[in-house]
Amino acid sequence: MRIIGEKINGTRKTVAQAIAARDAAFIQNLARRQWEAGAHWLDLNAGAHPERESDDLRWLVEVVQAIGPVRLSLDSANAEALAAALPLASVPPLINSISGEPARLEGILPLVARFGCPAIALALDGSQVPATLEARMVVVRRMVAAARAAGVPDEDLYVDPLVMTVGTNTEAGRLFLDGLRAVRAEFPAVHLTAGLSNVSFGLPARALLNRTFLTLAMGAGLDSAILDPLDGELRAALLATELLLGQDRHCLNYTRAYRAGKLGAPKVDGAFAPLARP
Amino acid sequence: MRIIGEKINGTRKTVAQAIAARDAAFIQNLARRQWEAGAHWLDLNAGAHPERESDDLRWLVEVVQAIGPVRLSLDSANAEALAAALPLASVPPLINSISGEPARLEGILPLVARFGCPAIALALDGSQVPATLEARMVVVRRMVAAARAAGVPDEDLYVDPLVMTVGTNTEAGRLFLDGLRAVRAEFPAVHLTAGLSNVSFGLPARALLNRTFLTLAMGAGLDSAILDPLDGELRAALLATELLLGQDRHCLNYTRAYRAGKLGAPKVDGAFAPLARP
Repeated sequence: MRIIGEKINGTRKTVAQAIAARDAAFIQNLARRQWEAGAHWLDLNAGAHPERESDDLRWLVEVVQAIGPVRLSLDSANAEALAAALPLASVPPLINSISGEPARLEGILPLVARFGCPAIALALDGSQVPATLEARMVVVRRMVAAARAAGVPDEDLYVDPLVMTVGTNTEAGRLFLDGLRAVRAEFPAVHLTAGLSNVSFGLPARALLNRTFLTLAMGAGLDSAILDPLDGELRAALLATELLLGQDRHCLNYTRAYRAGKLGAPKVDGAFAPLARP
Repeated sequence: MRIIGEKINGTRKTVAQAIAARDAAFIQNLARRQWEAGAHWLDLNAGAHPERESDDLRWLVEVVQAIGPVRLSLDSANAEALAAALPLASVPPLINSISGEPARLEGILPLVARFGCPAIALALDGSQVPATLEARMVVVRRMVAAARAAGVPDEDLYVDPLVMTVGTNTEAGRLFLDGLRAVRAEFPAVHLTAGLSNVSFGLPARALLNRTFLTLAMGAGLDSAILDPLDGELRAALLATELLLGQDRHCLNYTRAYRAGKLGAPKVDGAFAPLARP
């Protein structure tokens, strides 16, 4: 699994304050802890104030890269902000995200191609998430075709079939899992990703639902996700699932985490066994 | 999910002692707690002393049925013990189990047919578990054909593709999950079951692996399992998985368990939200 560490997100109040105050130490602490926990990319979202998103995103890229050789994920639907930040990245960052919306496909895909970035592709075509699997696949096919035409290889695409909450539609989880399998069957080289926590919106005991859904989604082929790598129970579920799916050679990651006393431990920031970074 | 409550098992020391001492209160307490927790069947295993298995199994059937209208699972490979106990059961019990071994297929299947019982069918042909999926499917096909010939309908069969520990073969989990999907594809009407805890044999933090594997297996079609219905974390994972797979209409079981304060609670015998009994 490739984890996109979700914590540097300007829609969180403390992060928005740190960005506004240019509090580099706060941001770098979040970055360092997620990176040490095994995040494959560190998501950077500066979208709280659209009028200064370009400046804020550039600042985030610079302060986070200052901690060491990390990989970044630029979380923006704003082509101008992405174009401003991309030249500062020392390795091509993950672009989070393109979608089937013309503004994002035509505005952002050229940047993805020009800078040689991997990119998340949302099965989304407008403001509404398509209700059926087939409608989502229509969007996925269009995005893959557009990416190929722009010279972006399938293996740089991280398709997100989009999960909605089971709180209002109990079929939403299965629809997403079927979506993972359908994308995998039709496009064997693309990666599959998700923002899993939507599945539990409006329901109690969300952490339980989110980590259980992570396991189900990995069983259906998910190989990437945006999540909190500092959540100990989530990480334990992830390590257990990798072992059970034959993705942990000689059980090394799992047994190392156990010996460190961290499997299934309650959530304690800073006390954890790192995930393996593929 | 149909749960087979596993706790009345003569290979457990306290249960063996209770059987030997004819301690009905001890056995009935185990039975009542599992039934109230939502077990669909209560497994009865009197195999610790083969020379008196028939008497012990008959005694177990009588004392457990005395608590009320419960469903039983007779856990024996001994046709004589089964033949002795079956006439005492007030509703046809689950037979645990037949296999591809001639002695069990020819010795036990006629009892299954005569008493109209559901039965677990293990993908096992001798003392060794077949190493490949195809070899297991050969056994499954032979068992289904023999059951049909004996008049046992597919929907009374609970096929167990057999899970081995990932501790010695990291492909064992995936092999089992592929087995579930293969049986489901070829025999849509049969049920799928498992003794999941084998998957973690020899590994640390087994409870984490077992409940994670339950989720993966349910995602692959498992609709029954033998497990401990008094394990709170296992039950929480099961309820979350049912909700996420669209098997919990209006989220009722999940939210009821939450309101009872029992989701994700540490294992406390006797303090739990019951599973829904289908």
